[in-house]
Amino acid sequence: ALEKYNDQSDSQGHPSLILTKSGVEKIKSQLGSIPIFDASLEATKDEIDAEIELGIDVPIPKDLSGGYTHARHKRNFLMLQKAGVLFQILDNEKYAVYVRDMLMAYAKLYPTLPVHPQTRSYARGKLFWQCLNDSNWLVYSSQAYDCIFEWLSKEERDTLENDLFIPFANFISEGNPQFFNRVHNHSTWGNVAVGMIALVMDHDELLEKALNGLKTDNLKVGMKDNDGGFIKVEGQKVGFLANVDEPFSPDGYYTEGPYYQRYAMYPFLVFAEALHHVKPELKIFEYKEGVLLKSVNTLINLSDADGEFFPLNDGQKGMSYYSKELVTAVDVAYHYGGNNPELLSIAKKQDRVLLNDSGLAVALGIKEGKDKPFDKKSINLSDGSNGDEGGVGILRSKGLELVFKYAGQGLSHGHYDKLSFSLYEEGEEVLQDYGLSRFVNIEQKGGGNYLKENKTWAKQTIAHNTITQNEVSHFGGKYEVGSKHHSELHFYDATNPQVQIVSAKETNAYPGTQLHRTLAIIDDEDFEKPFVVDIMNVASENKNQYDFPYYYFGQIMKTNFEYKVPSELKPLGKSIGYQHLWKEAEGMPSSDNVTFSWLNHGKFYTITTTSDATDNLILARIGAKDPEFNLRREPAFIIRRHAKSTTFASVIESHGNYSPISESAVNAYGSVSSLKVIYNNENYTAVQIENVNGKIKILVIANNDALNKNEHHLEIKNKEYKWVGSYTYITTIN
Amino acid sequence: ALEKYNDQSDSQGHPSLILTKSGVEKIKSQLGSIPIFDASLEATKDEIDAEIELGIDVPIPKDLSGGYTHARHKRNFLMLQKAGVLFQILDNEKYAVYVRDMLMAYAKLYPTLPVHPQTRSYARGKLFWQCLNDSNWLVYSSQAYDCIFEWLSKEERDTLENDLFIPFANFISEGNPQFFNRVHNHSTWGNVAVGMIALVMDHDELLEKALNGLKTDNLKVGMKDNDGGFIKVEGQKVGFLANVDEPFSPDGYYTEGPYYQRYAMYPFLVFAEALHHVKPELKIFEYKEGVLLKSVNTLINLSDADGEFFPLNDGQKGMSYYSKELVTAVDVAYHYGGNNPELLSIAKKQDRVLLNDSGLAVALGIKEGKDKPFDKKSINLSDGSNGDEGGVGILRSKGLELVFKYAGQGLSHGHYDKLSFSLYEEGEEVLQDYGLSRFVNIEQKGGGNYLKENKTWAKQTIAHNTITQNEVSHFGGKYEVGSKHHSELHFYDATNPQVQIVSAKETNAYPGTQLHRTLAIIDDEDFEKPFVVDIMNVASENKNQYDFPYYYFGQIMKTNFEYKVPSELKPLGKSIGYQHLWKEAEGMPSSDNVTFSWLNHGKFYTITTTSDATDNLILARIGAKDPEFNLRREPAFIIRRHAKSTTFASVIESHGNYSPISESAVNAYGSVSSLKVIYNNENYTAVQIENVNGKIKILVIANNDALNKNEHHLEIKNKEYKWVGSYTYITTIN
Ligand SMILES: [Ca+2]
Ligand SMILES: [Ca+2]
Ligand SMILES: [Ca+2]
Ligand SMILES: [Mg+2]
Ligand SMILES: [Mg+2]
Ligand SMILES: [Mg+2]
Ligand SMILES: [Mg+2]
Repeated sequence: ALEKYNDQSDSQGHPSLILTKSGVEKIKSQLGSIPIFDASLEATKDEIDAEIELGIDVPIPKDLSGGYTHARHKRNFLMLQKAGVLFQILDNEKYAVYVRDMLMAYAKLYPTLPVHPQTRSYARGKLFWQCLNDSNWLVYSSQAYDCIFEWLSKEERDTLENDLFIPFANFISEGNPQFFNRVHNHSTWGNVAVGMIALVMDHDELLEKALNGLKTDNLKVGMKDNDGGFIKVEGQKVGFLANVDEPFSPDGYYTEGPYYQRYAMYPFLVFAEALHHVKPELKIFEYKEGVLLKSVNTLINLSDADGEFFPLNDGQKGMSYYSKELVTAVDVAYHYGGNNPELLSIAKKQDRVLLNDSGLAVALGIKEGKDKPFDKKSINLSDGSNGDEGGVGILRSKGLELVFKYAGQGLSHGHYDKLSFSLYEEGEEVLQDYGLSRFVNIEQKGGGNYLKENKTWAKQTIAHNTITQNEVSHFGGKYEVGSKHHSELHFYDATNPQVQIVSAKETNAYPGTQLHRTLAIIDDEDFEKPFVVDIMNVASENKNQYDFPYYYFGQIMKTNFEYKVPSELKPLGKSIGYQHLWKEAEGMPSSDNVTFSWLNHGKFYTITTTSDATDNLILARIGAKDPEFNLRREPAFIIRRHAKSTTFASVIESHGNYSPISESAVNAYGSVSSLKVIYNNENYTAVQIENVNGKIKILVIANNDALNKNEHHLEIKNKEYKWVGSYTYITTIN
Repeated sequence: ALEKYNDQSDSQGHPSLILTKSGVEKIKSQLGSIPIFDASLEATKDEIDAEIELGIDVPIPKDLSGGYTHARHKRNFLMLQKAGVLFQILDNEKYAVYVRDMLMAYAKLYPTLPVHPQTRSYARGKLFWQCLNDSNWLVYSSQAYDCIFEWLSKEERDTLENDLFIPFANFISEGNPQFFNRVHNHSTWGNVAVGMIALVMDHDELLEKALNGLKTDNLKVGMKDNDGGFIKVEGQKVGFLANVDEPFSPDGYYTEGPYYQRYAMYPFLVFAEALHHVKPELKIFEYKEGVLLKSVNTLINLSDADGEFFPLNDGQKGMSYYSKELVTAVDVAYHYGGNNPELLSIAKKQDRVLLNDSGLAVALGIKEGKDKPFDKKSINLSDGSNGDEGGVGILRSKGLELVFKYAGQGLSHGHYDKLSFSLYEEGEEVLQDYGLSRFVNIEQKGGGNYLKENKTWAKQTIAHNTITQNEVSHFGGKYEVGSKHHSELHFYDATNPQVQIVSAKETNAYPGTQLHRTLAIIDDEDFEKPFVVDIMNVASENKNQYDFPYYYFGQIMKTNFEYKVPSELKPLGKSIGYQHLWKEAEGMPSSDNVTFSWLNHGKFYTITTTSDATDNLILARIGAKDPEFNLRREPAFIIRRHAKSTTFASVIESHGNYSPISESAVNAYGSVSSLKVIYNNENYTAVQIENVNGKIKILVIANNDALNKNEHHLEIKNKEYKWVGSYTYITTIN
């Protein structure tokens, strides 16, 4: 069959998507001398050889995710893609035969298939329960087809294209406009699937649909999918380019959050790579000022010290830059984005590369020792296609990472979590964002899909470290309302490594109430480690109930207030998440400051917060009304206050350590002896922190005019404060 | 002061406890060429140099453990010991000066001290709240004194001995017979403290007290300490030798369990080392057939794959062979116990050695590459001074470790946990023993001491994976009763790596009821991994309630029975531990088999158990009636049955895996499709396990005559079974 190999059917030839003819030659010439590439190749070869031994199985579709037919078809497309690549690199026809035979089996099955028997999706596929997974299949299978294209006979290609690829592409596009014509990670996959196969087949009409969407779709504005996301909004642009334009901010932040950004990176980048090869005139990597490549850097910055993504919005905890999508992202960004040596250190940790031109570039870079540490610094990332819809601020100081979310709604995967934050230390969660309520691909848990607790718990405001007013979620928990708004950055300043600070306001979550939160990490030599200052200013003309939780982990060490534990546990409320919280204890402040300390992963933590005498202090635990044990039993410390305007000012310290091996407890007590709001009006808020050694620190923030260059003047208790900038931080003598 | 250095006051000379004159010379000659020793020396030097910079502080005793004066005096004795060693090895007088000055400060303070102001202990110390810690101080300080003995003037020695060491030794012995004259880890420390200083001072009278206890003590039989342990029992032998004789079984198992064995190892072994040097005629390392050195091997075997000790009885989780006591134990056992190369691999992991003769031997062994992996195999360890009071059986198969406890009471640190077990996989707990309820040395938590929940929860039977009858703990929770009894080994057989099995009976925990539990790990090619078979036969003539928990970790995946979650949580009972369990859900079996599966640390687990239609299936969680949040909120699956005689037969499978990075769930379902007790009488019990592929396995155990050599004959459902030995395991055709 070697003569087929030279049967080039168009000017450019194949492969041309993620591999190129010249790239393949270069790879072959280096094989055996590029350790990380050679190892990746060997692992892939072992996997595919074993799979070929097992034989091909293309079952009749039946199951939800997690079930056998789902898992088998998913594995098939992954195997197809890898076998195609092996054929190109190793020149061994057995891989081409495997790809051809499996594709032929699909070509035989596909025309017989009705839509998938499972009815859960707003856009049911044929191989899978949703078009999304069918699109995954086509994105990968297109690459396999590209790899054996020239090896196949014209008749074989005709069969595959007419019986499989063209009807497949038509079904997920024209057949499912509610899926294809959106701005959403689903449609990105759909667009890319059609675009990839269009590039292989040199099919201009399909490529046009992929890039710019269907011309007509007969969809009604306001339609929603089964996750509650809008299918069509007024003035919606569609197609792949719209899916780059809209969800990415100019900073490369993807509005659905890092978990879905990770998921979407693969189709974005493989299609960009393919377009770069086949349609270089599109200059896809320069599109929107190079946002696709920039977003890889952004995504890495949205991970903790272990590389785990911050679980903003619907995010599964534990997903990290070790995922296969990030191997693609890092390799492509390195190769097409100017060979940033910091990316090589991530690739080194991933310990595998793509078996293509970009993987080769990375392998060579590592071999030549060009890697530099990826030094994650504090960063502020705008949200919104124009970068003017709030954002996410990440403060980093020594081992601490603070993630402050003041972004837009984040499409259908967004949570009602305005001005919420989470805190990490050395890759461990200190104050958590719960993430999603789903066990992705575990069939026993609701077919591996979103659980109802995702809506009743994970998305609700009370599940987050922010204010819930009157036991109602932000925007009344209404997606239509939340989607119209976003928080506003007040200021962000990380220029001084001793005082890093971010401040944002939210005026729409609760009409009539303004939330203004400022978070700082302060690295001060009078404290053992950097500490967090958290100032939540709430302004309202009406008296409201404010619930302000801190979702900590681990064992309570000590509080400075008395609390009672009930003999029977009752839920904290009836709905919007409260029904899922058991009230484990309740108390009242015994002084102007409340302290709450705990031990987790061998470190001590203390929150010191200013309190009102009438505050309720609630110790809660997730897990009520959870009839299938879908929720994790994790605790919260909640400050409940009835007030009009009020300030929650807190210092969060990490201190000391405990080892069960040495059994020694070092620095087990926090070092804040007193915390006071010493000034607070519409123009300025000042907090005073005194430590156990009598050192006094004052942080003043400008609540207005934070960005002007004029000097601020302020008198507090007969002392004058003058500074330029949005805040000042000073040490005074008692 | 160099002339003092040669002022040898007795024939043998000093140092002679853990260092010897010749050993010091050998060390000096090797310095710089023994990496692990050099690094340990460097680390110690850095620590002591920094401490000397800070200056000496010998505060007036005031605090409980965790408080400043406690921590300071504890740190002082550790510093003294290390500084003494540095003086010997480095020949730098500043270390001798530091030791002398601190000891002189103690000599000045000690005569002025009343008993410690904290009144919690049955034997209050002077420097510390309990004589135990005073004894720690003397064990370490004796070594420091030994190191500078010859450097001191006669006058200085007289002052130290007359004002400090002799009154100190008298106080913890004659002054506290209730502490000194026992068999307990407390008195071991007391005996060794007196013995060590006696050896330095060449004080025969004190040495005799140390070895053989006080001749008269005026203690009453039946007295108890503040932990509830007996101080004096009828016919009690006392002193160090009695403390070797009694708590150690011939297999080297220490009856209080591994956590306390670890704690006691240090005084046992340093005193043994010192006796070996100064009184070689005692042949201490050969005493009781070499049990002291053997026990080091035993203790390492009582740890999981990470080296963490199984938390039997009062054990703090996380304590491991990385502790300083085990550095001592491993080095001493290597040097004086025949240079077992497997110990070198543990020392390598510890990455530090003692700065003495045995540390040098280990460092040289490692340098010469003599280390071999410490291959922990299945092992059965007898309990009781004669090895006839039950024991602990540990079964190991691939990544699984099963710990079956059928031992004696374990003195005052024992739990009411007859025939309980715990299960580990790759160093992670699968089915836990709760351990103790205490945050050792964390002052905020009850002064770092035992919490009341240790008695109300951790010791109670319901806190363990075993049977609780009629909501009463074993022996009625009475220490006096439990101390009279132990379970009996029925058989243990790990000769066949495919079927490893241990079986024991308990007839005293509940008079009138016999508990007979058999646990096996079976590695069968028809299953993905080894699985556990658990057969608990209960025989009683009365109808009882049996509660049978499995304390799992992680997220419930699926059950084959329906359960209801209540809208309010109530405790499961009123006392003996039940008051601490919330009843989170309750259900009934829907078939002859109940299945319960969960996910933890990326692995799936399934329990399949034979059920009665009237069983109550309870999902519980620890944490009720916990007014200070001392307990961990961890779950249990409890089978509750009302019956006379009954069998709980279960298979516990670990299967598959889940990664939040690949998001793929592999082998997420257990593979047992049916479990039946197909034969059960006083002579034999047979269980039949069918897997999802229709493979049928039968395990038959002999309930009597398990150890005889005759052939067993048995007919079950018209099939004949013949075998020799305590059990048979066969595969049959359906
Ligand atoms: Ca969230
Ligand atoms: Ca226990
Ligand atoms: Ca571990
Ligand atoms: Mg918006
Ligand atoms: Mg992490
Ligand atoms: Mg006994
Ligand atoms: Mg472990």
